[in-house]
Amino acid sequence: MRGRQVQLLRYPEGKVRPEDFQVVQAPVERPAADEVLVRNTWCSVDPGMRLQMRPAGPAGYFPAFELDAPLGGMAVGEVVESRSAHFAPGDVVVHAHGWRDYAVVTVSGEALRGIGTLRRVDTSLAPPQAYLGVLGGPGLTAYAGLLHVAGLREGDVVWVSAAAGAVGSLAVQIARLKGHRVIGSTGSDEKVAMLRDELGLDAAFNHRAGAVADQLRRAAPDGIDVYFDNVGGDHLEAALGSLRRWGRVAICGAVSEYEGTGAPTGIRNLFQAVANDLTLRGFRGSSYVEHRSAFERDVAGWLRDGRIRYRETVVDGLEHAPDAIVGQLAGATTGKVLVRVGRGR
Amino acid sequence: MRGRQVQLLRYPEGKVRPEDFQVVQAPVERPAADEVLVRNTWCSVDPGMRLQMRPAGPAGYFPAFELDAPLGGMAVGEVVESRSAHFAPGDVVVHAHGWRDYAVVTVSGEALRGIGTLRRVDTSLAPPQAYLGVLGGPGLTAYAGLLHVAGLREGDVVWVSAAAGAVGSLAVQIARLKGHRVIGSTGSDEKVAMLRDELGLDAAFNHRAGAVADQLRRAAPDGIDVYFDNVGGDHLEAALGSLRRWGRVAICGAVSEYEGTGAPTGIRNLFQAVANDLTLRGFRGSSYVEHRSAFERDVAGWLRDGRIRYRETVVDGLEHAPDAIVGQLAGATTGKVLVRVGRGR
Repeated sequence: MRGRQVQLLRYPEGKVRPEDFQVVQAPVERPAADEVLVRNTWCSVDPGMRLQMRPAGPAGYFPAFELDAPLGGMAVGEVVESRSAHFAPGDVVVHAHGWRDYAVVTVSGEALRGIGTLRRVDTSLAPPQAYLGVLGGPGLTAYAGLLHVAGLREGDVVWVSAAAGAVGSLAVQIARLKGHRVIGSTGSDEKVAMLRDELGLDAAFNHRAGAVADQLRRAAPDGIDVYFDNVGGDHLEAALGSLRRWGRVAICGAVSEYEGTGAPTGIRNLFQAVANDLTLRGFRGSSYVEHRSAFERDVAGWLRDGRIRYRETVVDGLEHAPDAIVGQLAGATTGKVLVRVGRGR
Repeated sequence: MRGRQVQLLRYPEGKVRPEDFQVVQAPVERPAADEVLVRNTWCSVDPGMRLQMRPAGPAGYFPAFELDAPLGGMAVGEVVESRSAHFAPGDVVVHAHGWRDYAVVTVSGEALRGIGTLRRVDTSLAPPQAYLGVLGGPGLTAYAGLLHVAGLREGDVVWVSAAAGAVGSLAVQIARLKGHRVIGSTGSDEKVAMLRDELGLDAAFNHRAGAVADQLRRAAPDGIDVYFDNVGGDHLEAALGSLRRWGRVAICGAVSEYEGTGAPTGIRNLFQAVANDLTLRGFRGSSYVEHRSAFERDVAGWLRDGRIRYRETVVDGLEHAPDAIVGQLAGATTGKVLVRVGRGR
């Protein structure tokens, strides 16, 4: 049996282009003991993957993708063959071997304890691909980032950047339903309208429409208490200038820097943290798996009650996965970006 | 009655020079109701005062000094006249109206609750000027920064920059006596020797002797868990590159930036906070006055037991106060920098 896989041909300099990838047919191995063979139905497209497309990414972050080998990334699929007593054919699972038709996945001790990347998902609660978005890593990232990293407190005024993305759009909605004044920023007027009209934010702005610091000051003239940062750069500097005493930043990502060449400009007003007793905490959603059951219970409940909604940008066919990440990094997508693999149900 | 006071003549660009100040004689006012008249004996010289010598310093920080008016700064002195039932002539007090011979100080509600800047000190425990250093603001800053801001945990490897200064030299000693491996950095080989030989640090380096990141990596090849930052800039970037997962930074100051012209270069590797789940917390010691009684009890005890020691750089005469801050900002001083006013005991 053979299957398609997306490979990286070179480590791109600056912006990623579709030509940096190739889609090849390769033999599919059979699972060994304690492994399962999964037919992928949906693959996740995450901006953080750009950092793995460098020969040496940030120390301590996920390792670089190898050239001429299948890329990683989260995926959902169906077990078609199992050499583990814990999984059976037909199980729908999420795992970290995306961007290919078939994946052989090890059933690790972590997976059995529910803290690994491989796990069975409950498709009676939500469609499978929701476990790559609102009920998956991005959802947990938003939930834990807001509640456990930023430590949201009553009365906090909250700003979320990249607020129309998979993580940001859940973060703004959680903050809203907990009664906070919420400001969202994004990269187009259409998405600004979506944030205001569909998600009910108190204020929203297009970061391309003027200096971020000025727009933030207009949206929150009395300052903010929490900034959920997906962008870094001028966005983080604007937040530092607007955060009130004892304010907090949950640093989730810095997408403004991912396609830069050379070192980023740097954050020049970090001294505001001293002046105003601010806390900045970087985090990875995967570091907060101990909150997954509370997160799934809460978010599944809010989904059922119609208190939160989510959007997807779906690209059909594994061969278009490279276009999907190119579009995502350019800010052209909304909500969770997914590749429907093409032979899934 | 007349007294001397040090005034700022202009807001200096770049490095402060003695010519930016003048010492003038001015009439001393009499205290009104709920005020005391204090004869200053010791004035404190703090690097953070440089930030108040700008027309517009960091938002939320202490306000700028006015030109042609006496500078502020902490001081110790003796009450010579009291219009408050809570203070009597002869009381030794610490307060925030330094850099002058005599000061009229208001006995505020905060002062009466023990959380203001004016307070009586216990000279049976330590000499008066210790309340400007090891038992004063710098001491509380080191203590709270290490224990409450960085949240020191068993086994943490700790790096302190400006480790021979008033704040740093207490921070390294507290970390040492709590059993941590401690690395100190400073700006001269003499001070490096002092850190190793007198304070018993595990490692120390001169930040002028090579790239800070390289020297830190040699001193802590397996990385660090806590960085107590007094310097900012290349020091903070080096820390971000060496901090292990769940590491913490207590940002106390950024003296490398205080005399810069224009915006600082900026911190370019803040993404390491995301990659390694790091927390950076800016703070002001004065925000942690609720820990002052525990701090005074602990530090006074350690002083009595000889478990900590402190150094002073003393400049004699109010007229030399400008030289003192010039020297301090150039890194030429050790320990607490003090001006002995000249008519004190």
